[in-house]
Amino acid sequence: MPRTYLTPGPSQLHPQLSDFIGDALRDGVPSWSHRSAKFDKIYESAARNVKQLLGIPDKFHCFFVASGTEAMERTVQNLAAKHSFHFVNGAFSERFYQNAREIGKNARLVEAELGEAFNLDEIQIPAEVELVCTTHNETSTGVMLPNSFFSTLKMKAPKAFLAVDVVSSAPYPKLDYSIVDCVFFSVQKCFGMPAGLGVLLVSDAAVARSLEIMASGVSVGCFHNFPTLLAYEKKFETPETPNVLGIYLLMRVTEDYLARGAETLRKETDQKAKIIYETLSASYRLGAFVEEERFRSKTVVCVDVRGDLKKLRAMLDSYDIEVGSGYGKLKDSQIRIANFPTHSTATIEKVCDLLRKWQGE
Amino acid sequence: MPRTYLTPGPSQLHPQLSDFIGDALRDGVPSWSHRSAKFDKIYESAARNVKQLLGIPDKFHCFFVASGTEAMERTVQNLAAKHSFHFVNGAFSERFYQNAREIGKNARLVEAELGEAFNLDEIQIPAEVELVCTTHNETSTGVMLPNSFFSTLKMKAPKAFLAVDVVSSAPYPKLDYSIVDCVFFSVQKCFGMPAGLGVLLVSDAAVARSLEIMASGVSVGCFHNFPTLLAYEKKFETPETPNVLGIYLLMRVTEDYLARGAETLRKETDQKAKIIYETLSASYRLGAFVEEERFRSKTVVCVDVRGDLKKLRAMLDSYDIEVGSGYGKLKDSQIRIANFPTHSTATIEKVCDLLRKWQGE
Repeated sequence: MPRTYLTPGPSQLHPQLSDFIGDALRDGVPSWSHRSAKFDKIYESAARNVKQLLGIPDKFHCFFVASGTEAMERTVQNLAAKHSFHFVNGAFSERFYQNAREIGKNARLVEAELGEAFNLDEIQIPAEVELVCTTHNETSTGVMLPNSFFSTLKMKAPKAFLAVDVVSSAPYPKLDYSIVDCVFFSVQKCFGMPAGLGVLLVSDAAVARSLEIMASGVSVGCFHNFPTLLAYEKKFETPETPNVLGIYLLMRVTEDYLARGAETLRKETDQKAKIIYETLSASYRLGAFVEEERFRSKTVVCVDVRGDLKKLRAMLDSYDIEVGSGYGKLKDSQIRIANFPTHSTATIEKVCDLLRKWQGE
Repeated sequence: MPRTYLTPGPSQLHPQLSDFIGDALRDGVPSWSHRSAKFDKIYESAARNVKQLLGIPDKFHCFFVASGTEAMERTVQNLAAKHSFHFVNGAFSERFYQNAREIGKNARLVEAELGEAFNLDEIQIPAEVELVCTTHNETSTGVMLPNSFFSTLKMKAPKAFLAVDVVSSAPYPKLDYSIVDCVFFSVQKCFGMPAGLGVLLVSDAAVARSLEIMASGVSVGCFHNFPTLLAYEKKFETPETPNVLGIYLLMRVTEDYLARGAETLRKETDQKAKIIYETLSASYRLGAFVEEERFRSKTVVCVDVRGDLKKLRAMLDSYDIEVGSGYGKLKDSQIRIANFPTHSTATIEKVCDLLRKWQGE
């Protein structure tokens, strides 16, 4: 029996991924020139599918980078000449902030306790802030921010660009792209693909802002700055030789997701999340780490374990099931369960059944 | 009959690549955590193999990035606080220079005509230059610099760090790593792999220099700066989720190359290059673009075509053979023929046979 990965990414591969790779190898896709019309069609299709799936306006630009972490770097480089502002409530939002600091920006942050979200009533965003960086789904703690967070935030910083990390939630969130100018994700989470590709979607206004910063004499990076990425995107190409196989696989996976339907995927995600959280609330040994229900992630569930964590993992392992470790200092008291479109309802039910039966040792 | 790619990269896949991917999928490699001991072993093996194959001292650090182009960016960011110097004789050495400029460095260059190398006698390198950037094999023009170039260069700029782009030649060159502190390549050329992985090898001194620049208050980048890459490399990991499948495939391909033997690969490359250049010199219709024999690339042969270039490509296409286009403004008068370890002697002989018979239309 093949192993089942409920890890928060890299995670379970798309059930047809092996077939998609087989098709790519048969057709020689990895040998195709990244300056060929055949490649351009792959780029165009993958980008169109991604926008359709996430509900992103056509006029957004779809850039391919190497990872969510690189997308953070490029976002800060291109949208903040000096001042960025970060909502930090875990390791990945912290990475966003650290990237900005290390690039040399005046990066300010507001922090929330692990497992908590932010109270916007108490937060002031200075007027000089050019870019607000947020994490829709903090993979390390399982906190997902509701849409109302972003709309309230936009009212507090109407002139700043708003960037949203949807690394471990896309295509679940339906964001309001009249207030969001930049989103990014990586493919080894909800898309069930091998890691090594990040997708960064930005508005026209974001590219214009990058040009403005460049004109002011501040570096916006080099081959992966927004204007250069845009110049190549117009031809459905990238400045460097990209992960061609990854872009091909993204085209195939998103084709399948669109056939299943974006709304169906969202509903299934909600239903499976409900099964997991109900299992936790009925358990004496297990509990949801995130207390406030409205902030509980639908795609990465952080679970407090009262009992022998090693034995829990060993029990799951005996069924060839792997869940994620708690992140950082939460490693010894938590597990994380991914709930991606690649995880079937049957899989989630099976795991929950095992968790329900578990007696703590 | 499967198509044969003699393109300069992406190019012909390693003959066992499909098997290697099959193994990876069977074992679930793309689902493995990049923080797991299983992944660490892959990183360690791939890095060890690469160093052994290229003859790079053990104490060099092996970092994984996304592309050769990213490696250029990271090299300049980490080894030049202000002043870099570039040898430009084609599109890829130009990209190295452009990256440096766009990052905001005082990047100076010396240019050679396309198809030519540099006369070091005529070149002065200013004393303040911290980093000299060179391209061992200029993929766009088929110029390969001999080892004597690097030793003479080092004497002209003894205090500067020397970076060598070996993107389309590694593992062919045997560089003197007592004078070179930084080399990088990408895997879609001589390693016969899908694109999306760059390998950047740097000395201890290079990391120390990066720390020095950082301490002086100049940004050396963020998640992919040398000190951060080093901190993760110590655990055989990367700061971000990397192209795990790519690193696995690199381990497998380099295993095979080591079994064939680094010296054997070099000799075969020399022999196959000889077959190609002899074919060109015997042809009335075709000629080597690079006039000086000692600068002719062994791995990417640029061919001047006197005749109907479209018909030449169509003729090769009828045998399911694809060669590269001339680069940029050379597109209408040249083809490029790759000669990588993935191209067998039989393949090279077959192509040369077809080229010999070609009558120009």
